[in-house]
Amino acid sequence: MADKARLSLNQMTTANWSVAEAVEGCVRHGVRSIAIWRHKIEEAGLAACVRAVEDAGLHVSSVCRGGMFPAATADERRKNIEDNFRAADEAAALHADSLVMVVGGCAGVPLEDARKMVADGVAGLVPYARERSVRIGLEPLHPMFAADRSVLVTVDQALELARAYDACEVGVILDTFHIWWDPRVEELIAQAAGRIFGFHVSDWLVPLPDVLLGRGLMGDGVIDNRKLRRLVERAGYDGPIEVEIFNRALWDSDPDTVLAQVIERFEQYV
Amino acid sequence: MADKARLSLNQMTTANWSVAEAVEGCVRHGVRSIAIWRHKIEEAGLAACVRAVEDAGLHVSSVCRGGMFPAATADERRKNIEDNFRAADEAAALHADSLVMVVGGCAGVPLEDARKMVADGVAGLVPYARERSVRIGLEPLHPMFAADRSVLVTVDQALELARAYDACEVGVILDTFHIWWDPRVEELIAQAAGRIFGFHVSDWLVPLPDVLLGRGLMGDGVIDNRKLRRLVERAGYDGPIEVEIFNRALWDSDPDTVLAQVIERFEQYV
Repeated sequence: MADKARLSLNQMTTANWSVAEAVEGCVRHGVRSIAIWRHKIEEAGLAACVRAVEDAGLHVSSVCRGGMFPAATADERRKNIEDNFRAADEAAALHADSLVMVVGGCAGVPLEDARKMVADGVAGLVPYARERSVRIGLEPLHPMFAADRSVLVTVDQALELARAYDACEVGVILDTFHIWWDPRVEELIAQAAGRIFGFHVSDWLVPLPDVLLGRGLMGDGVIDNRKLRRLVERAGYDGPIEVEIFNRALWDSDPDTVLAQVIERFEQYV
Repeated sequence: MADKARLSLNQMTTANWSVAEAVEGCVRHGVRSIAIWRHKIEEAGLAACVRAVEDAGLHVSSVCRGGMFPAATADERRKNIEDNFRAADEAAALHADSLVMVVGGCAGVPLEDARKMVADGVAGLVPYARERSVRIGLEPLHPMFAADRSVLVTVDQALELARAYDACEVGVILDTFHIWWDPRVEELIAQAAGRIFGFHVSDWLVPLPDVLLGRGLMGDGVIDNRKLRRLVERAGYDGPIEVEIFNRALWDSDPDTVLAQVIERFEQYV
């Protein structure tokens, strides 16, 4: 059974809460870590967010998200990298374990070009992040997001990109929703040893209610989250475990009830 | 530009047509090959289907589909294999290039077990198919179908399963919709040389309208079908190219108009 002390609330699980409300929710429910999204930071202001997590004594497992590098013009790509600098500033201020990268898809540019733009974007961000001691976590997304969100779709590919840098600078974020289907997932998690910067759990519902907003609570779908958690631990990761559930129905529910359920399912299925 | 002589109409692109209607449509539009679905064979009767394609002088690129091996009980699994024997009979009667396998998902059984059941199912089918000179085409499906349709999700994995058998008995079906996202797709297609039993094209729309029924006409999405066609040819495949588009909007249109459009897009984008 996963230790509740390792549970981190990814803010998108309770998307209607502001940063302050999510922090209070974590305190109320005895959750010690939180993952914060940038649009929520923008709403509240960075200084207020830093104060909120510090006052509550919460650990920030990640800031979500940087990335989105591919674009049709050099000017847009430069702007995207600059926006990633701001994301790194926020991750630094919040002392987050890492800045999560959703690298961007290939709609608008050819697939090969998009992959190159991602590599260039990461290369442009690393020196800036390094100076601020911000670790970059490359998150491979499920291949169904290759066109619109992330040309980075396998653990393999994320590791290959990460290995161009020091293991304390660039690593991978392993999310069970994105990687569970991979026939090589066991060996790839083992190969990720030393570069696992984060671990996310949720579930794959059958049938899938929605590509983006149809993730399930652990235990409601087909993913063996416990097995994957053990593989990640065997590879040396003992950090926070984020529960990140994009689900319209959960968003329409009372966030306190959702968080209570998340904790219950975490203890039961992770 | 792909030669129209290689175009095969996968019957699900014009799903409202019976086998006889689809055959007539192919003749009318100068399409020389067709892929026939089993529920349509059941509607028309096998003998009538055989007569229809023979009278029209059409080539049958595939019979769709066998597979769906995983099941909760041994009895159901045995029934599934027996159903695959009937599929092989149909493929034999129609002189199809291959019997396409959609192997089945993991809803209801653990993922590892489902994979084992698929391997067992194929092993159970091969001797029966061999006696009837029916080639088994393993089709890796997009990973978003891993839970409900196919635990076989990469070219790699399909090749590994195929290699347990002779190269004239078990091969792979490469469908651009299912494999385009794979960062290793070029090397994997090359590795498939000698075992490519079929090649399917369609497109990936952005945003994806529907997981199952949201495929696009070539040219409407992000897939570089021409590039993939060339890779498949470089690996030695020169057989029919099936256009297989599951799309609700196309199904609601006049099939003759759809087929004319398919031919136009095939010549323009494949």
